[in-house]
Parts: sequence; structure tokens; C-alpha cells
Amino acid sequence: MSKKLIGACIFGQSGGPTAVINASAYGVIRTALDAEEITKVYGAAHGIRGVLDDKLYVMDEEDPKELELLLHTPSSELGSCRYKMADPEVDDTDYRRILEIFKKYNVRYFFYNGGNDSMDTCNKISRYMESVGYECRVMGVPKTIDNDLFGTDHCPGFGSAAKYIATSCMEISKDSRVYDNGMITIVEIMGRHAGWLAASSGLASYFGSGPDLIYLPETDFDMDQFFADIERVYHKNGKVLVAVSEGIHYADGSFVSEAKTSATDGFGHAQLGGLASMLANLVKAKTGAKVRGIELSLLQRCAAHIASETDIEEAYSAGKRAVEEAVKGTTGYMVAFHRQMDDGKYRCELTLVPLASTANYEKKIPLAWINDEHNGVKQELIDYVLPLIQGEPAIPREHSLPRYARLKKVLA
Amino acid sequence: MSKKLIGACIFGQSGGPTAVINASAYGVIRTALDAEEITKVYGAAHGIRGVLDDKLYVMDEEDPKELELLLHTPSSELGSCRYKMADPEVDDTDYRRILEIFKKYNVRYFFYNGGNDSMDTCNKISRYMESVGYECRVMGVPKTIDNDLFGTDHCPGFGSAAKYIATSCMEISKDSRVYDNGMITIVEIMGRHAGWLAASSGLASYFGSGPDLIYLPETDFDMDQFFADIERVYHKNGKVLVAVSEGIHYADGSFVSEAKTSATDGFGHAQLGGLASMLANLVKAKTGAKVRGIELSLLQRCAAHIASETDIEEAYSAGKRAVEEAVKGTTGYMVAFHRQMDDGKYRCELTLVPLASTANYEKKIPLAWINDEHNGVKQELIDYVLPLIQGEPAIPREHSLPRYARLKKVLA
Repeated sequence: MSKKLIGACIFGQSGGPTAVINASAYGVIRTALDAEEITKVYGAAHGIRGVLDDKLYVMDEEDPKELELLLHTPSSELGSCRYKMADPEVDDTDYRRILEIFKKYNVRYFFYNGGNDSMDTCNKISRYMESVGYECRVMGVPKTIDNDLFGTDHCPGFGSAAKYIATSCMEISKDSRVYDNGMITIVEIMGRHAGWLAASSGLASYFGSGPDLIYLPETDFDMDQFFADIERVYHKNGKVLVAVSEGIHYADGSFVSEAKTSATDGFGHAQLGGLASMLANLVKAKTGAKVRGIELSLLQRCAAHIASETDIEEAYSAGKRAVEEAVKGTTGYMVAFHRQMDDGKYRCELTLVPLASTANYEKKIPLAWINDEHNGVKQELIDYVLPLIQGEPAIPREHSLPRYARLKKVLA
Repeated sequence: MSKKLIGACIFGQSGGPTAVINASAYGVIRTALDAEEITKVYGAAHGIRGVLDDKLYVMDEEDPKELELLLHTPSSELGSCRYKMADPEVDDTDYRRILEIFKKYNVRYFFYNGGNDSMDTCNKISRYMESVGYECRVMGVPKTIDNDLFGTDHCPGFGSAAKYIATSCMEISKDSRVYDNGMITIVEIMGRHAGWLAASSGLASYFGSGPDLIYLPETDFDMDQFFADIERVYHKNGKVLVAVSEGIHYADGSFVSEAKTSATDGFGHAQLGGLASMLANLVKAKTGAKVRGIELSLLQRCAAHIASETDIEEAYSAGKRAVEEAVKGTTGYMVAFHRQMDDGKYRCELTLVPLASTANYEKKIPLAWINDEHNGVKQELIDYVLPLIQGEPAIPREHSLPRYARLKKVLA
């Protein structure tokens, strides 16, 4: 055990929000408030931007009951950002500013909750603080609905999004088969380079009624094959439900949706979307059938009302463990999940992986879990996702509507 | 009490599905199976089309446990249709065919579950059977997420859709405010001529966080005012959440979305949709801000996973009452809801209204419940909707996914 390090901590949320990122926030904040080594708990407004802008909320000032409601409050309650920091070796302006803020508040612990890019940010800050000899323990807490984070079996946020997607696809499947005329429905699901979310729609097909066809970014998309697949199912059943990942791409790597928009987000990623209606128009022109495009849009990443209890518990435990480890002396690691399947029963252990090993790698679906026709998923994928969506949380409600945390957000 | 009428019954589902239309189906089917006057219970495949096509499922053959699962199964389990029948005075072909089928199966009870157009169908069949002297008791069971059915305080299906919309808008509101840059989000909600559903998004604003602006088809839409409203909120808060009904229209009556599509459904209504992205593009061009359009699409009418328990109970009771009344001798009526507010507590009584009085009228939101700026709703609207979304049903699940009814659908 390392020597006791006494000081304040900063916690920040980064990247796209999820249904359970605030459960991790609660794991960090609650544990930090209770840790005697941590003198003050600050929440950064909009992630690392809040540190750079000296905009920190004092979590010690919050009502503990409201903080607890973070377990069921979707989105990033402290605000998020997509700010990409330079390499400190190239431009250390931001890092010098962060150091200044850390010194101002005697910050000795930094916890950052996010995906690939955020772990990269986290890693750079950790390296910089070490290089200038400022003692600060830096820990990453994983988060992403995309489930593409390297070094961990899965990511908090994914299970709840997968549950929403599977349930919604069951409902859409029921609805889209209701009339006595033909109908083709195309559902667009998030996932830029990894198809975990779109693949999760397969749960609906396995356990009720769901997509007949699923297209993922792990394989190359072929428009002619797509038309042929749809026409085959259409002629057989008169109804077709198709799930497509927003990130499907041709063999040359170009996104199928690419023609639709040229906007990019702060990290230079193409902003996707509108794919469902584009494909719907193409299929309509090709088949003459009635075709509907549905984009699950933001709904799939913020649907706390149908979150997975397993996901909430794991998100919370990851935040909690990050603080416990840091207090014990660990730094430069991300909390990760290691799956155990004893007697066929799912159990998850928390482990630690070096931040450097997770940053900027993307974990994709193994090709062996995708069917040979590249239009569906295999049992292995179902077995992987199913444990992650289990359990119905007791959602705090008022007037039968969700009651979210109402934080005071007192500035330091 | 009329004389006992012994014979079979046919039950049919019509129009757009809802999250609870099958709860009404269960109310009809269960009560009819238990009624000694009713010798056989047939479910028509795809509503009146199933009668015309002699495609009837024998409900007596179903497993009672599976039938009970209809309480939580979204969409129209027997199939629906949008088939418009001619006036029997003009063309009685369909009616002669229906009479033939009624005679073939000794059908003495006909229950039809739907909205305005379906009550019209129901009324025509009732009048025809009377005119030819065939004794058959015809009862309508109300259903429509649009809540525009005349003669009833509200409609089964509306409460659950309103709950989904309010909850989703709370979640979207949380999600769309997460970044530190400006953001305008436009949510498109169903409702062709009546804005009850879009107005229900106001619950999110009243009880948490929801739309800043709501536009309804009850008032004329003005694009310049729309831009001005959005810019005002944007400059104040940097974030704007807007809810629009798909049926918003200009002062000349033309739909704002009209330019987008010329397709029509079977009743000659324009098929709307794509409005959110159209408005998003216009607002983006006007403001230069980041704008996102979200269409709630089918999801809002099939989200049984977040149904209102009140809605399920009322849907069931309406179906049950229709059968009980018919057995007692009533015919030519629709079951309706009469709201009681004793001591400020909501209670609903079932009443009967003549089919002729409900058919083809559309009930809209009173203008007094819409704010003077025509961009939001007043307390009266909230007070009206709130009781209808109350209660969380115990959803039957398998693997944490909904377990829907699996009917055998044995043909007669």
C-alpha cells in the first residue's frame, strides 16, 4: 500500500452520454465523499473543459438523496465535452493550465469517465503530471454505449442501450407486421465502427420477434446483396424488418450514409445519421413496396426508464472501484470488466488495465459471431449480450414520470 | 333486459395499433368466452377484411394464459386494416358478404375496436343488419393514440403513448443539453388533426425537463414566428427543445410537411412524416446552430414496456363492458369514458354513446388549454393528461425482455 495521499479530487464526464454514466458518477462521488484521504470532491462542468475553464461544482454541497438519484438519471449530469487535447509533447498549453487548477484546489485525484478518446485524454494527463513531478492519481472509468472500448469485456452504458434496442425492435416488429399489406421497415442504430448495438437487435429475433436482417460495420456492405436479401424475405413473408448500424460501409471503407452529410464532430469523425431514410427511399424505388425508415436516434442512449439493473450496478461499481484503487495508490489505470461464466452463470469481476493500452483502440465484434451471409448474428453474440441486459431497476418516480437528480451545482 | 340472444361473436381490430389495443381485445375475448349466450368467439384477421375474406381465428382454441398476455402485448395481435367500406345505400356488396359470413357462423355479436373510421364502419354494419332484419348486436370499443374520438373523455391507447412521449422527452431533454455548445432539437410527434400527443410532451416540461416550445395542429403555424420563438430561447439558454405535431399546418390549411410526400393511406389521408428533419434543416440554415431532428415514429404507439397501468385497465374494461352490454341487449353503441373528479381524485365511469354520434368527428384540444403564444400548453392540459399516464404495470418478461402473447390462431 502506497503512502496516504491527502487532497481534493476532480471527477469529469466525457464523450456521448449514456443511460448509466451518472451511476458511475455516483460511484465515484459517493465513494470519494466517504474517503478520508479525499478532502473535497469537485465535479468538472463539461468534462476537461470545466477544469480548463475553472468551472468546478462542489459535490460536498449536494443533498445526499439527490446524489443517489444519479443512479437513475440519464445523460451526463455534470455536462460533457468532445474536446480533443494536443499531445503534451507537441503543445502543453492545456496541461499547464490543468496543473495550475490542480494546484489551486490541491487536486491529488483525477477520475475521468468516458470512452476511447476520454481514456486517451486521461492517459495524457497522467503522463504529464508524472513528467512534471506533480503527484496526482489518475484513473479512468469506462463508458460507452458503443461497447468498443479495448481491454474490457464490455462497457457500462452498452447493456442498457442494448436492452432498449432489443425491446424497441420487438415492439417495432409487432407494429410493423400489423397490416395485411406488404411492409419493409429499416431501423438505424448507433455504432460508428463497431456494431455491438445494431447486433443487439438480434436479441429481439431470438426471444420474440425482431429483425430479419442485420447489417454491421464489421463486414463490408454490398448494396446489391442488401436488395437481394430484402427481396427474398419480402417475397416469403410480405414483411421485412431490417436493422442497420449507422456505420455500415462499402468495401472501400466509405460510409453508406456518407453522401448525406459532410459535417464532423470535434474529433474529426464524420457525423452520421439519416441513413434509415436514405435506405428506405432506395428500397422503395427498387421494390415498389411500402418502406419505412426509423432512426432510434438519441433515444437509444438515454433511455434510463428501461435501463439494465446489471448495467447500473456495474457502472456504479466501476466508479467506486476507481476511487478505492486511487486511494490505495493506483494511478494510470482504467477499471475494466472481466467476465466469469462459472456453471454457465454470468459474474463480472473488476480488473485494472493500463490507460495506455485502452486509449484509441476500438474493439469490434468477432467475425465468428456474425453469420456467413453477413446479415445476422450467431448464438455467440446473443450469449455475450444477454447477461448484460438483465434486471429491472426500481425507477424513482413522481406522477408516474421519472424523478431525476436535481443538483445545486455550487461553483467552487 | 332484452331476450337472450344465442350465437357466436366476431371481434376485430382496426386502424393504427396502440400499446393497449390488445388489452381491449382481451377484455372482449375473455368476457365473451365466459358469456353463456356466446357460443363461439372468433377473432377476425385484419379487422373487417378478415370477415370479408372468411379468415377468422377461433379464440376458444387458445391457451387462456397466452390470451391473458394480450394485456401487455403491443400492436394489434389479430392484425389490423385501413379498409374503407362504401355506404351501404351506395354499394352494399361488402355488407351482403358480411351478412353471408355472419349467417355462416351464426354470428349474433360483432365487436369492433378502433378510432373514428372504425366506428363509422361499425355504425354502417349495425344499420345494414337492422335494415335487412338480421339480429346482430354491434358494439364499438374505442381506441386511438390520437385521442381524437368524439363522445368520450379520452381513448384507450392515448395514455400509454402520452407516457412514452413525456418520458422520452424528459430523456431527450437531458441528453440534448449535455454539451457546452448550442443545440436545437426538434421532436416530431404523431397526431394528424389533433395535437393531444404532442401536447403531452408538456408533461416533461412541467415535471422535470422537456420541450421549451410545443406546436399543435389546433392553431395555425407561422414559420417566421417559429424561427423567432426558437431564436429567443436559443439566445437565452443556448439549448432549445421543440415538440411539433406531425399535423401542424399553415393558415391556409396546408400541412407544413406537405411538400415532403404525396403518398396517402387507404382513407385518403396524407401520409405525414419527415417533418422533423425538414424543420431541422430550415432552422439550421436560419440560425447556423447545431440542430437535430428526431421522429418518435412507430415507437410512440407500440411502447408497451412503458404503458400506463390506468390505460391498460381502462382498455380492458372497455372491451369487457362492450360484451356485457351486448349480452344485455344493447346494440349500436360505443363504450365511452366519463371522467369524475371527486375530491380532486380521478375516477372514470364507463358510459355508452350512439355509434352514429362518434363516427367521423374529431375531438381537438380546446383552444383555452393552449397558451396565447400558440407555442405551449396550459395547466388545464396537464391536469387532463396526468391521470391517464398513472401506474406501472407488472410487465411479464423472459430474459428481461417482454414476453408477448403467442396465439395459435386456428382458422375457423
